[in-house]
Amino acid sequence: MYATTRRAALGLVLGLWAAASSSALAAPVSADPLPSWSVGPAKSAIIGYLSRVTAPGPDFVPPSERIAVFDNDGTLWAEQPIYFQFAFAMERAGEMVARDPSLRQKPAFAAIADKDHAAIARLDEKDLMEVALATEAGLTTTEYEALARAWLDQARHPRFGVPYTALVYQPQLELLAYLRGAGFKTYIVSGGDVRFMRAFADQAYGVPPEQVIGTSLKTRFELRDGKSVLVHEPALESLDDGPGKPSNIDLHIGRAPLVAVGNSDGDLQMLQYSASSARPSLQILVHHDDAAREYAYDRASKVGKLDKALDEAKARNWIVVSMKADWKVVFSPHP
Amino acid sequence: MYATTRRAALGLVLGLWAAASSSALAAPVSADPLPSWSVGPAKSAIIGYLSRVTAPGPDFVPPSERIAVFDNDGTLWAEQPIYFQFAFAMERAGEMVARDPSLRQKPAFAAIADKDHAAIARLDEKDLMEVALATEAGLTTTEYEALARAWLDQARHPRFGVPYTALVYQPQLELLAYLRGAGFKTYIVSGGDVRFMRAFADQAYGVPPEQVIGTSLKTRFELRDGKSVLVHEPALESLDDGPGKPSNIDLHIGRAPLVAVGNSDGDLQMLQYSASSARPSLQILVHHDDAAREYAYDRASKVGKLDKALDEAKARNWIVVSMKADWKVVFSPHP
Repeated sequence: MYATTRRAALGLVLGLWAAASSSALAAPVSADPLPSWSVGPAKSAIIGYLSRVTAPGPDFVPPSERIAVFDNDGTLWAEQPIYFQFAFAMERAGEMVARDPSLRQKPAFAAIADKDHAAIARLDEKDLMEVALATEAGLTTTEYEALARAWLDQARHPRFGVPYTALVYQPQLELLAYLRGAGFKTYIVSGGDVRFMRAFADQAYGVPPEQVIGTSLKTRFELRDGKSVLVHEPALESLDDGPGKPSNIDLHIGRAPLVAVGNSDGDLQMLQYSASSARPSLQILVHHDDAAREYAYDRASKVGKLDKALDEAKARNWIVVSMKADWKVVFSPHP
Repeated sequence: MYATTRRAALGLVLGLWAAASSSALAAPVSADPLPSWSVGPAKSAIIGYLSRVTAPGPDFVPPSERIAVFDNDGTLWAEQPIYFQFAFAMERAGEMVARDPSLRQKPAFAAIADKDHAAIARLDEKDLMEVALATEAGLTTTEYEALARAWLDQARHPRFGVPYTALVYQPQLELLAYLRGAGFKTYIVSGGDVRFMRAFADQAYGVPPEQVIGTSLKTRFELRDGKSVLVHEPALESLDDGPGKPSNIDLHIGRAPLVAVGNSDGDLQMLQYSASSARPSLQILVHHDDAAREYAYDRASKVGKLDKALDEAKARNWIVVSMKADWKVVFSPHP
């Protein structure tokens, strides 16, 4: 008995010693989980929230309920002058018209093929969405994702001259990592096409395909030479914007998220949904007020309009992140 | 230098010793990961597959791609004499007619309210699905799940006299656990209503809500006294059966599953989809051939018809599990 106990005690001591020495060999833990965020109310509120829900006490949240949802365009990467997905769709549309001139009968396709900038500027989000869907229909999901990847590799942003994936926000990468470190499952819930986002989300954000929720076309199952494929139909399955976001969150996740991050009126209902949880929750809006480093737009913007959600954020004390004041850097240095 | 190296070597040795002793303190690993499965080709094939894809070598599969999908009715729990969800819907329908006699204008509702067994027996799956949807429409997702939970707590199976959740298959619980232990993410992909399944899937199978995919109604986002709810619309969002299963797997998961388990023709496309993966994959069909302990049915069954999928399984050497021969016990002893 005595020998066994002594051996167990020795094992415990040696085990602790080994554990301590192996953690000393690992990379040092940064004292600041959000180094690109300036000291201020936004950063304090985020750190305070995560400390409360992960520590024993009345605000503790069981790990299984730690769900965070992020909009993509304008929240995780830039969205000006047009949603990047539409830049891809316009390039595809131009190629499609070159192969099939009858497509010129659709005014949006003709404007794009002619590079008629005035006519293109008049296209609204609905027109561009229709172009995007038309360029996707008929392709298998695998073909579409490969085209999106190839485009992301070669396309350059008109103002910054870098690949679009170099325009992800460094402070948000830190926030994603901080949430995951606190046991949160991080999802993208975006109006963007789900398969367009999956083409880069894992590499860019560390968000795997099963945690990407977006707008989608219906797909048709087909066997081609005995191998199954899914072909995009020319019909919308789900528009993941505005009130569609809570519906899709419930369909895909089945729980209300406790952390919701957006930047436009299209995110309002997702933030409201998260704020309705009986658990402590956190709502964050990114306010684009930095024309020098990125863009400045809100209530009157054609892309990423932020109006009602800004009023509600102020009324309900949600966190409004000033890109100018709260972010020391904007873009990730690792494209 | 010498001292540092010696200390590092000592740390390594002590660390290994501590690791070995702490694993010796843990619960012993069972030599048999599938104790309720009889020795035979099905069990051997499953164990062989999981050994190959988790060990270094040409068949190794990266953990992120380890996705397993299971049908629910007839695959994870029983489905006779009618899908359990329909038993719930019929009870709800009876209550609805009692409150609102005008519903008797719908023949299915009248038959159910009158307990007209001959007329009920003539209802086909489409009729019963319509009844199920009608009993769900107008309820919030939270209300519906609470009703489903309450029903599951009090309802009893007509033949076995036990709660429906006592009719989950013990060998499948072991298979789910074995897959998870091998790093697989386990999903349910079923024709059943997604919110009905979520009412019990986590407790019964250890499958969290975000890993349950099913048939669903559209939902409408609403603010009620400032609190957001999702209300079921009387319209189908997605029928998760047959070719709808691969479409939903792609929409929700974004990768082809490597392990697919079903029991009826409604699972055929899901198994084909999984078999089309470039990675080593595993397809399993449960064959209900055990009238004594459960039920015996296949090609001519109204519920859970297994005909084309059985032929394809035989032609392609998929695993066909004989409930009678391959399962030592059928139902879980822990209701």
